[in-house]
Amino acid sequence: MADWRTIAGGITAPRGYRAAGIAAGLKPSGLPDLALIVSDVEAIAAGVFTLSQVRAGCVDYCRQQLKTKAAAQAILCNSGQANASTGKQGWANTVESAQLVAQALGLAEGSVLIASTGVIGRQIPMEPLRQGIARIVPLLSEDASEAAAQAIATTDLVTKSIALEMDFDGRPVRIGGISKGSGMIHPNMATMLGFVTCDAAVSPGLWQDMLARAADRSFNQITVDGDTSTNDSLIAFANGQSRTPAITGPGPEAERLEAMLTQVCQFLAKAIARDGEGATCLLEIQVLGAANDTDARAIARTVAGSALVKSAIFGRDPNWGRIAAAAGRAGVMFEQDDLRIELGEHVLMDQGQPLGFDRAAASQYIVQQSAASVLPQSPTVISIAQANELLDAASEPPQTFLRPPMEAQCLEHPVVIRVGVGAGSGSGIAWGCDLSYDYVKINAEYTT
Amino acid sequence: MADWRTIAGGITAPRGYRAAGIAAGLKPSGLPDLALIVSDVEAIAAGVFTLSQVRAGCVDYCRQQLKTKAAAQAILCNSGQANASTGKQGWANTVESAQLVAQALGLAEGSVLIASTGVIGRQIPMEPLRQGIARIVPLLSEDASEAAAQAIATTDLVTKSIALEMDFDGRPVRIGGISKGSGMIHPNMATMLGFVTCDAAVSPGLWQDMLARAADRSFNQITVDGDTSTNDSLIAFANGQSRTPAITGPGPEAERLEAMLTQVCQFLAKAIARDGEGATCLLEIQVLGAANDTDARAIARTVAGSALVKSAIFGRDPNWGRIAAAAGRAGVMFEQDDLRIELGEHVLMDQGQPLGFDRAAASQYIVQQSAASVLPQSPTVISIAQANELLDAASEPPQTFLRPPMEAQCLEHPVVIRVGVGAGSGSGIAWGCDLSYDYVKINAEYTT
Repeated sequence: MADWRTIAGGITAPRGYRAAGIAAGLKPSGLPDLALIVSDVEAIAAGVFTLSQVRAGCVDYCRQQLKTKAAAQAILCNSGQANASTGKQGWANTVESAQLVAQALGLAEGSVLIASTGVIGRQIPMEPLRQGIARIVPLLSEDASEAAAQAIATTDLVTKSIALEMDFDGRPVRIGGISKGSGMIHPNMATMLGFVTCDAAVSPGLWQDMLARAADRSFNQITVDGDTSTNDSLIAFANGQSRTPAITGPGPEAERLEAMLTQVCQFLAKAIARDGEGATCLLEIQVLGAANDTDARAIARTVAGSALVKSAIFGRDPNWGRIAAAAGRAGVMFEQDDLRIELGEHVLMDQGQPLGFDRAAASQYIVQQSAASVLPQSPTVISIAQANELLDAASEPPQTFLRPPMEAQCLEHPVVIRVGVGAGSGSGIAWGCDLSYDYVKINAEYTT
Repeated sequence: MADWRTIAGGITAPRGYRAAGIAAGLKPSGLPDLALIVSDVEAIAAGVFTLSQVRAGCVDYCRQQLKTKAAAQAILCNSGQANASTGKQGWANTVESAQLVAQALGLAEGSVLIASTGVIGRQIPMEPLRQGIARIVPLLSEDASEAAAQAIATTDLVTKSIALEMDFDGRPVRIGGISKGSGMIHPNMATMLGFVTCDAAVSPGLWQDMLARAADRSFNQITVDGDTSTNDSLIAFANGQSRTPAITGPGPEAERLEAMLTQVCQFLAKAIARDGEGATCLLEIQVLGAANDTDARAIARTVAGSALVKSAIFGRDPNWGRIAAAAGRAGVMFEQDDLRIELGEHVLMDQGQPLGFDRAAASQYIVQQSAASVLPQSPTVISIAQANELLDAASEPPQTFLRPPMEAQCLEHPVVIRVGVGAGSGSGIAWGCDLSYDYVKINAEYTT
């Protein structure tokens, strides 16, 4: 079933999509902060959003729009201000932004979805935003996916982008996506944004179901620090421009499309986990033998989110006891005598009891995986404080601030922890990262 | 109702209790590692234990004993090995330990409860333990509560001990307690041990109910890092040696006793939170206006456990946005327009929106509270590695290794975050600590 190909182009790889990203002056750093994604024709639209009680107005706005009509044509996303905890003014700003984009593109009202990320409780500076909208629309192009990916980033060290292609009846269908992290990542759609474009023709209910299931196997299975945000949004368009036959119900075609969608979402989600604040490696927790997949995923998430496990991995310590303890408190029943724990090729524990294993070699496995997945370095560090200092001497943000893209190879060497909990057929995977000094440093020193 | 007095003596302050603590050679460091608490007569016994699926044999053993008969006369606790994930041999070692203590004290089998803390997956070295049991029994005394508190500690920087006294019908009733932390502290009875002695006469069901409610308002409301352990145990004896009238059902006497028990448990729990690994202050999250107390406690726990909130407090940053975001993801419904957040005297947010406030003064409040609650310094640091180095040159552990006791004043200056979520009557409190570089250092570098 995995007969897809990786292609270039990100969210503009599928047919009939254009994008743009600019620095509109919303971020104090002067870094890119406004992205626009547009489909040439109205697209079927699906969304998965934060479950937090404290939500940005744009989340309520998107939910409301998609409830009215599961279709849209554009997504506007600003970074710098989350527009959460901003009351009636924040809501009015969301509505005005959508209207301005609709006018500028000549679209019907309600065709534009809005996303925001950044500092909570600050109003978006509307005058720069209005000028930004006027400025970004003419820049829309089929080559600007990366510019959009740059513009949605906040503390991300790298941009996250992917596109896959697969043949249906001899014609290519494409799915592209971009995402941003990087702290506050957790199940229930933590501080993360994901935008997915697809050129297949799919019926609305089916597309929403596919996205929800893909999210449950990707974005909802990553954790950086357990904090879910006010703004988490995953929005996916399907615009039918591939000219392949419409997929209207379950069947092999729907399964193939969902598999490719899941793959896109998993890449974007894993990229967020790898780029977790302060992370030095990607953790992949595989759980097997649970009563069902839901149980397995819950155990995987709990292990991936354990501060003690994450600290141990940062210390390159094959500390199976902490893994066992985390698995045990996931709220899922299992027999502790069935517990088996592997770290890469090393079996640390079996039948609920520790085994003799080569501690140095197991530690070295973590070192190796980490070394094989080092992120591409930004030309300069990107802390807002440092950016501001440099910007005092430069009116335009120098290109050296821009983040390099996540490389696929960085995700191909996770530190794999495999946890067996019995003889059931349930399995699940979660992804996370280690907990380093830098996580504390980043989050103690910056107001986000 | 709060007409209790603080008295000296810890767990041996109530009448009819003796204790002892020794270094039995179970810990590689040579620090004290074996504690024994004995009631002169059989006591009503209640317990609250970890809910983890991966449990030490001693937890199952205690649960089984207390189910058979809600009475016991002694508690043996070792530190150094958790005796979790140790299979049949671990279980056999628990049973043998209980039998040896019962024999040495001339008690019936089943009168001795067992607790362990330390490294998971290591068998307790039984020969030193057997010799330790023979050695500790003759040392039992009414003056050795502190020795027991020393012996149950692991990475704790200070010992935790309290005793309160209150008059019932003109005669004193006393409750004493000791506890240990210090990482892996979380709701559901995280890695913590608490032992409580009381000389009132109470009926067994009532005593268990009191303890469960007290735990829900103390030990279950603290969090250091979200990790629940394999060994968490809170055990409380009531031996009737106060010679005050038996409390057999609900009423004013029961309420007074429960209030004092809750106070003891809260002191012991807060002491654990303040001594959380790497902590520089005690966080107290007060939640008001929820639909009920359970909801309020859940919100308080989530805020107290948020890595982002904890990092911000370590950075002395009055970051209300992170507090709002954490409250919003607690799984409790509320209207975000009702949200109010205070930090000490500073109102940061009201009616769901941020207020202008003196950021420097609010930051200074965190600095002040932290400075006023500095822990008493150990004469020397107590890392096992450092201890081992020093022990190479000394066959007996020098007294300078011993931890000073937690001082009450360290708990009197928490950093208070008050969160209002509506007009309901539900309220609740949780305690935690900040997340510092040292937390990562401690947990990355040591195998626990």
